[in-house]
Amino acid sequence: MNQRKYSVFLGNVGSCSDRYCGAYGRPYSIEELFQRAATVPHLTGVDLVLTPDLVDGFPTVRRMLDATGLNPVSLAVDHFAQAKWKQGSFSSPDPAIRRSAVDDTKRAMDLAAEIGCNLVTIWPGQDGYDYIFQADYEQERTWFADGIREACRHNREIRIALEYKAREPRNRCYLNNTAAAVLILEEIGEASCGAALDYGHVLLGYESPAEAVAILHKYGNRLFHVHINDNYRLWDDDMIAGSVHTLEYLEFFHWLRRTGYEGWMTIDQYPYREDGRDAVAESAEWLHALEGIMDHADSAEIDEVLKRKDAVAASRLMRRLLFRGETP
Amino acid sequence: MNQRKYSVFLGNVGSCSDRYCGAYGRPYSIEELFQRAATVPHLTGVDLVLTPDLVDGFPTVRRMLDATGLNPVSLAVDHFAQAKWKQGSFSSPDPAIRRSAVDDTKRAMDLAAEIGCNLVTIWPGQDGYDYIFQADYEQERTWFADGIREACRHNREIRIALEYKAREPRNRCYLNNTAAAVLILEEIGEASCGAALDYGHVLLGYESPAEAVAILHKYGNRLFHVHINDNYRLWDDDMIAGSVHTLEYLEFFHWLRRTGYEGWMTIDQYPYREDGRDAVAESAEWLHALEGIMDHADSAEIDEVLKRKDAVAASRLMRRLLFRGETP
Amino acid sequence: MNQRKYSVFLGNVGSCSDRYCGAYGRPYSIEELFQRAATVPHLTGVDLVLTPDLVDGFPTVRRMLDATGLNPVSLAVDHFAQAKWKQGSFSSPDPAIRRSAVDDTKRAMDLAAEIGCNLVTIWPGQDGYDYIFQADYEQERTWFADGIREACRHNREIRIALEYKAREPRNRCYLNNTAAAVLILEEIGEASCGAALDYGHVLLGYESPAEAVAILHKYGNRLFHVHINDNYRLWDDDMIAGSVHTLEYLEFFHWLRRTGYEGWMTIDQYPYREDGRDAVAESAEWLHALEGIMDHADSAEIDEVLKRKDAVAASRLMRRLLFRGETP
Amino acid sequence: MNQRKYSVFLGNVGSCSDRYCGAYGRPYSIEELFQRAATVPHLTGVDLVLTPDLVDGFPTVRRMLDATGLNPVSLAVDHFAQAKWKQGSFSSPDPAIRRSAVDDTKRAMDLAAEIGCNLVTIWPGQDGYDYIFQADYEQERTWFADGIREACRHNREIRIALEYKAREPRNRCYLNNTAAAVLILEEIGEASCGAALDYGHVLLGYESPAEAVAILHKYGNRLFHVHINDNYRLWDDDMIAGSVHTLEYLEFFHWLRRTGYEGWMTIDQYPYREDGRDAVAESAEWLHALEGIMDHADSAEIDEVLKRKDAVAASRLMRRLLFRGETP
Repeated sequence: MNQRKYSVFLGNVGSCSDRYCGAYGRPYSIEELFQRAATVPHLTGVDLVLTPDLVDGFPTVRRMLDATGLNPVSLAVDHFAQAKWKQGSFSSPDPAIRRSAVDDTKRAMDLAAEIGCNLVTIWPGQDGYDYIFQADYEQERTWFADGIREACRHNREIRIALEYKAREPRNRCYLNNTAAAVLILEEIGEASCGAALDYGHVLLGYESPAEAVAILHKYGNRLFHVHINDNYRLWDDDMIAGSVHTLEYLEFFHWLRRTGYEGWMTIDQYPYREDGRDAVAESAEWLHALEGIMDHADSAEIDEVLKRKDAVAASRLMRRLLFRGETP
Repeated sequence: MNQRKYSVFLGNVGSCSDRYCGAYGRPYSIEELFQRAATVPHLTGVDLVLTPDLVDGFPTVRRMLDATGLNPVSLAVDHFAQAKWKQGSFSSPDPAIRRSAVDDTKRAMDLAAEIGCNLVTIWPGQDGYDYIFQADYEQERTWFADGIREACRHNREIRIALEYKAREPRNRCYLNNTAAAVLILEEIGEASCGAALDYGHVLLGYESPAEAVAILHKYGNRLFHVHINDNYRLWDDDMIAGSVHTLEYLEFFHWLRRTGYEGWMTIDQYPYREDGRDAVAESAEWLHALEGIMDHADSAEIDEVLKRKDAVAASRLMRRLLFRGETP
Repeated sequence: MNQRKYSVFLGNVGSCSDRYCGAYGRPYSIEELFQRAATVPHLTGVDLVLTPDLVDGFPTVRRMLDATGLNPVSLAVDHFAQAKWKQGSFSSPDPAIRRSAVDDTKRAMDLAAEIGCNLVTIWPGQDGYDYIFQADYEQERTWFADGIREACRHNREIRIALEYKAREPRNRCYLNNTAAAVLILEEIGEASCGAALDYGHVLLGYESPAEAVAILHKYGNRLFHVHINDNYRLWDDDMIAGSVHTLEYLEFFHWLRRTGYEGWMTIDQYPYREDGRDAVAESAEWLHALEGIMDHADSAEIDEVLKRKDAVAASRLMRRLLFRGETP
Repeated sequence: MNQRKYSVFLGNVGSCSDRYCGAYGRPYSIEELFQRAATVPHLTGVDLVLTPDLVDGFPTVRRMLDATGLNPVSLAVDHFAQAKWKQGSFSSPDPAIRRSAVDDTKRAMDLAAEIGCNLVTIWPGQDGYDYIFQADYEQERTWFADGIREACRHNREIRIALEYKAREPRNRCYLNNTAAAVLILEEIGEASCGAALDYGHVLLGYESPAEAVAILHKYGNRLFHVHINDNYRLWDDDMIAGSVHTLEYLEFFHWLRRTGYEGWMTIDQYPYREDGRDAVAESAEWLHALEGIMDHADSAEIDEVLKRKDAVAASRLMRRLLFRGETP
């Protein structure tokens, strides 16, 4: 039986904007967001994005963590939501911006240490480019690795998870897929640095979530954190988990268990038009139900199918898992 | 309870080639293909592509239809597998080729009439273009509609279903999506002409299968035939039905029932590396199990959810359908 | 020699936000935006999105039109940037919202009439859905057509251009491609209603801009307006025109001229990280240079190549156009 | 001035098939293919795929190399066009197949040595999977690296170039992108093993050709070979080079020169419907003209633009390159 360590990004239970509409719902205070998160079934943790307002409100954060009993799963540094990052954070051509990217990370690590959280997430969504002839691809990658390395050395007790994604907000991001994440991790060369696998980002990159788990396991056991959502593969739609790629979740859970992943799964979605809390609850129920299927599955039998390299056997396995034996 | 009229393209239970490998499996005779198709559970029909060898072997086809009791669901004209079609069939700039496209269709209609089959399928995969500056988009569309119209008038008792697909073998095909199919049907202006909806082609076109059913229903009740398979959305992978887009099948069946579709569902896949018969049997089992879910669903309740335009309600409905109530 | 009627969406010369970053640049007043637009070479018009602040500031708009001499090319109704549209505008399940969509359009038509502008643009980006099982695809389309029809009848002297796009902000939009636009225009049945072709939206839909012009011409001469930008085909990146799909612009201009399009071309991009005015000027220079190539091209020779359906001839034509004869 | 070392895959000047049509043109003998290749302007080399018929006809190959004076640029092992590879070559679950993959490579290395060619190309298109739950992603990758390593050690004077591509013929291939290629090269750990960058494969993977050059340079100077063609980004359309992604070629050439690439560029396309020789000649003319632009460009000025991280400057640079100064 799996332990079900589910978390959510605090803002997910609030309101969202897109590039056209500044606010689809009303704003929520930090207290309200915590209270709403605490009502979601199966959730026992929370991840926080350290936007300037959350840094300012950190005493409230601390108080609400106590009040709700939610675990602080990770702090995510804001390297993407301020105009200063518009040409990159760790890879910016401006040395002052690169300095700021490192310093903000160190501050996040310190805040994490304060609240007993040992994981900091970095999503370098602004590190990339939009047009051809716009970037020095080698130099910027080197700056990127150098900056992360410096941050890691600030406190090796705090683990840093790099989240990769092929595009958005840049048309092209440097940390674009699973193998690219491993490569940059090798260049950084710090054992406290690993990868955050976002289920939807993997789909967006025409990769398979289960295979991404396998790659991160094979090349240095680098899976530090998991984000959960769903999409239609061409964009990071950040939908309710399981509502599109249902069967892929079953294979994903199998590989997480097989490779001994013991971290959290953090719901990370954008319920633009929905009540955020209710949409998060849907993801939690999907995860719970799908993990329930895998709790009753025979993992040795699954591994046997994987070794046969037989699509018909794979299809039969999927049917049996999904319909719990009520199919030939 | 739905009637389960499932068919398969005869060649699907045999062997496949791709552009690199001329044959992944051994060739099968027409007799063998029929015998293999007859062993697939839930199947009661067969669709035939009138490639030159099948036209020559038509007496064998007739005999095997009798021998197996499989219904002849449709005859598909070969407008795509001969070199003469390389610059299009009905829309070719060469008038002799356009003549041949019409004549081959009339012959198929005659053969269909002979065997008591009232449906001819046309997939104009070669009608389109590869490069910009390569085609007169208006003139070729007009030729296309003119040719189909002439064929329809040959025998209005035989229904003609036009199958649409965004690309392949041309980089761009004229009949590329559901709305494009309706437009050309309106230009043709014959009531005996409708659309063949291929589940995978719809996914490839970033469309939703259920919505495609709705569009074809709304604009003239034009759904004449359904092809079944699955893919990863970026290419016509022709995989086992349900193995990727499982939930979409549930919505698809709901709309087929709601709009009163009474035609067949024909499995149309490319089991390159699998035993063709076994891969087809997998699709049949998936279809059977998924239709079983919808047999027990409350269609009025589903329509109620559709009217609410509420993603959370939609997600909850999907969970309940898939897990048959064993989830909140 | 083509007349070069270039316009720009007023906001394009200002600042942009995305879903993460509320503002990449400083805000600009309406006066400033007009002054900036007036400095862009080759531009003689401006398109305006009637967001609430622009409606309130309409006297300023009128004054600045006079002051700059820029032509008011079209008014675009805001059916996408307010939370009230979150489940659709003309197709919303809420009748009060549908009413508001129509009334806002009529108000825009009145404002257009006041300033001597005869074109209103409607982009129904919120009319669609995100999840399967979330929408009644037939009913909502009917509501959509009914609402637009009512608006058209308010004043048939004002032309209404419907802008289509496959996705965003909804995961799926009803007006998703060129043929879908024609179908809905036929359902609306008003001669004053046509299509706005956005170059980038066409690319996003795996369509060809030139072919879209041909389709809109063939089925009722429906091209009322053109939006200009560029992207990498998988998302509406709204980049500088010509910076990605350069050759496609040449074919696009050929078909615009061949089909007698006499409307405007409005630059519609999202220069998130650039100075908006400078990025717009880049698009204007690209357009000017590419149209210059077509001014010197032999259109009869081009049509001759189109009739040959020969990729090698098409490639040679492209080389000759681009390198102006300095290649074999 | 660049040296223009252009080659072509011998079969490219012949005829093609796709999965529907076995032959769009007539077959050509080995002699004819060489004679046709020899007439293409700017070409001085030829790459050969060692399909069984070419192995049998190797004496003819040797004779025609002498007769035409074409350089034997690389031999590509056939790990994709025989049914035995249907579940993978180096990564097959069947040890006899893995043995065959290694042995066929060694034979190719021996043949290469015989004709004074020091490069063998491996494209593991069958090494991957189609369905989820179909593969042991870790084990198969290990087998793959082990097999290539063994082949490398057979003769370290012969360089081996691994060609990567995201999909086709498998729905998912293990060597799917640039970073994945680097990772597997590191696992192999042989200096004689590098990457073959296919321009179209890079586009298909939503990567940038110039950035791929930079990555391969940065992580071990791993670029051993370049394949040339073009496509619409969603499939490996294998079109005439430059006919779609024209500007990207300019940036690609810049980075090839900047990183000191001195290898060949081999045209690798699939002219299904064209005369193969003429379609290859088109690619050669495009390459020649585009390299001509870069011969006259100021590379220091380009590097200056890259350092500014400014999209407007990038756009202006592109315009100036393409229109050779005849634009502001």
